[in-house]
Amino acid sequence: MFQMIEVIGVSKEGFSQAVDQAVSDVAKTKKNIHFFEVTEQRGCVHEGKIKEFQVKVKVAFIE
Amino acid sequence: MFQMIEVIGVSKEGFSQAVDQAVSDVAKTKKNIHFFEVTEQRGCVHEGKIKEFQVKVKVAFIE
Amino acid sequence: MFQMIEVIGVSKEGFSQAVDQAVSDVAKTKKNIHFFEVTEQRGCVHEGKIKEFQVKVKVAFIE
Amino acid sequence: MFQMIEVIGVSKEGFSQAVDQAVSDVAKTKKNIHFFEVTEQRGCVHEGKIKEFQVKVKVAFIE
Amino acid sequence: MFQMIEVIGVSKEGFSQAVDQAVSDVAKTKKNIHFFEVTEQRGCVHEGKIKEFQVKVKVAFIE
Amino acid sequence: MFQMIEVIGVSKEGFSQAVDQAVSDVAKTKKNIHFFEVTEQRGCVHEGKIKEFQVKVKVAFIE
Amino acid sequence: MFQMIEVIGVSKEGFSQAVDQAVSDVAKTKKNIHFFEVTEQRGCVHEGKIKEFQVKVKVAFIE
Amino acid sequence: MFQMIEVIGVSKEGFSQAVDQAVSDVAKTKKNIHFFEVTEQRGCVHEGKIKEFQVKVKVAFIE
Amino acid sequence: MFQMIEVIGVSKEGFSQAVDQAVSDVAKTKKNIHFFEVTEQRGCVHEGKIKEFQVKVKVAFIE
Amino acid sequence: MFQMIEVIGVSKEGFSQAVDQAVSDVAKTKKNIHFFEVTEQRGCVHEGKIKEFQVKVKVAFIE
Amino acid sequence: MFQMIEVIGVSKEGFSQAVDQAVSDVAKTKKNIHFFEVTEQRGCVHEGKIKEFQVKVKVAFIE
Amino acid sequence: MFQMIEVIGVSKEGFSQAVDQAVSDVAKTKKNIHFFEVTEQRGCVHEGKIKEFQVKVKVAFIE
Repeated sequence: MFQMIEVIGVSKEGFSQAVDQAVSDVAKTKKNIHFFEVTEQRGCVHEGKIKEFQVKVKVAFIE
Repeated sequence: MFQMIEVIGVSKEGFSQAVDQAVSDVAKTKKNIHFFEVTEQRGCVHEGKIKEFQVKVKVAFIE
Repeated sequence: MFQMIEVIGVSKEGFSQAVDQAVSDVAKTKKNIHFFEVTEQRGCVHEGKIKEFQVKVKVAFIE
Repeated sequence: MFQMIEVIGVSKEGFSQAVDQAVSDVAKTKKNIHFFEVTEQRGCVHEGKIKEFQVKVKVAFIE
Repeated sequence: MFQMIEVIGVSKEGFSQAVDQAVSDVAKTKKNIHFFEVTEQRGCVHEGKIKEFQVKVKVAFIE
Repeated sequence: MFQMIEVIGVSKEGFSQAVDQAVSDVAKTKKNIHFFEVTEQRGCVHEGKIKEFQVKVKVAFIE
Repeated sequence: MFQMIEVIGVSKEGFSQAVDQAVSDVAKTKKNIHFFEVTEQRGCVHEGKIKEFQVKVKVAFIE
Repeated sequence: MFQMIEVIGVSKEGFSQAVDQAVSDVAKTKKNIHFFEVTEQRGCVHEGKIKEFQVKVKVAFIE
Repeated sequence: MFQMIEVIGVSKEGFSQAVDQAVSDVAKTKKNIHFFEVTEQRGCVHEGKIKEFQVKVKVAFIE
Repeated sequence: MFQMIEVIGVSKEGFSQAVDQAVSDVAKTKKNIHFFEVTEQRGCVHEGKIKEFQVKVKVAFIE
Repeated sequence: MFQMIEVIGVSKEGFSQAVDQAVSDVAKTKKNIHFFEVTEQRGCVHEGKIKEFQVKVKVAFIE
Repeated sequence: MFQMIEVIGVSKEGFSQAVDQAVSDVAKTKKNIHFFEVTEQRGCVHEGKIKEFQVKVKVAFIE
């Protein structure tokens, strides 16, 4: 059975890279990740520049 | 009159490239594409790495 | 108090760059931007190629 | 079986007329239209006046 | 206390007239209607022409 | 850069006219309005008759 | 004029049967039911087994 | 490339059977159907009994 | 305190059975399941026939 | 069978109190109220101060 | 014409107080505030305790 | 990396207190909670009085 885990990935470069980071992090503890779904895209700004792209991602794995 | 067609674009690189692939594919059969709207961002994972970014896109063309 | 301003950023390269452009533009008049939220991703197409990635972004600043 | 086709209707007069135009246009190629659903209402403006009311409409027909 | 009642109004002319018809009908049995909210806009089509504009409306009244 | 401003337009006649009034009012202070999006349709009722059609509209302009 | 009534139907067997039960129950007091829309699907569980499928349903009738 | 087609399936028995009918019907003209998504569940009623379960389904195929 | 876990249940027979399978699977590791909520209904197709009904379900348990 | 009734509760103190007022009011005519769901939180303001917190609430009762 | 401004109110005590703070802050620069709508409720936590309730609020005023 | 956990908090007093209880409970097992988001507000009623305010909350922590 697939289980969904919701996490937040971050990157200085962009949204795709933030998802990549989220999946990599989940992969450290969950071995059978199959797919992901982006549920939110945000980010934080410092002195007028984007400091961090943030994505909320649901990652599906089989336990 | 604009008509919307909903397709799924994929890319190994990122979401923007996946949209690009979707639009290119629709452009093979529809000549007058004007705009697109992203409705979903997902992807699949293999051995802890993103294998494919997937975007669901509504593409608007004039027939 | 945070205030949200909703703007549209554009880029020829991708969605992340379009957000970047939106934040940079808001930063010209608002000094204390803290975060942003993407609310829509669209784009326009010319002769079968993406001419512009467009993001609708809510930018939060303190006045 | 009903199939839904999504199109954009436009009118200088109003939203109801824009739906009317969308249905008339779809009726040129689809003979058995039964119902429609409005999914979006927008429009464009020129020199401070509404130039065009636009409705996104899902039109249901039997092929 | 306001109570919401959800009804469907119809008109051959347009959406605004369909809301008007819905409110008039509710007014036959509820005396203190204060406001309404449109929740859906649809319609049915016959021989390529709109036969009926339909609006789903929540009507708020005080009993 | 486009900026979105959200306003409420009203009319005794209908929703399209309420949008028209909203756009006209925004046009008094913003010179470069390009498009609008309807986000809500409501209204108020007095003695069983619609007193006012109300539309919440996001108006996009370039500053 | 159609009026919508929102009810919750339940069944030990499945969602379709729960809708069936909801419609049957409404039919005891409302004579002219025409259609229904499912707005939510839930259920309760006891000792690891589904005890009840629950559907929230809007039922449309003419009074 | 996957393309989504939106159709309405019906059944006298239940929602799952209505999806089954929708997929079977699409399969008559589209050879490579891969998956589907349910977007709406409705139905019509006659003399207090459900006459038809209806599902709106997006069916994804490769052309 | 209730905790929600989101999982995907599958069945060859229908959506209700897919929920049943999801709840049974969660029940192997969580003893106090109280209720569930369906958040998505999808499925996959092979050679024009539904191979698997899939439901995304939030299952609520007390730890 | 549960039936949902949608009402608006108000309070000068806060949202929780506004729900309380709504439930109390419904309880005057409906004896078997079981649960409620908040669907909207608004309020009105007079001379820069909140005059009334308003909640739209669906109240479930057994008739 | 009503204009909506979206702001974030905060409070150590609760959501209603956070809305109160948001309205008070907007009232410093906008004289004719009429109503507000809550669009999001969040908060931040420090050492296991809620440090701040946060509400995103659309405040309607007449300029 | 932030992980989101979805729980239900309850209180006899109000929604803010229910969130407080949810966060306190999560804090017993998760040490680094940073923020929360309210996703649903409900409650149960007994003999015409609110017995329990319930909030569904997503709590974000770093593991």
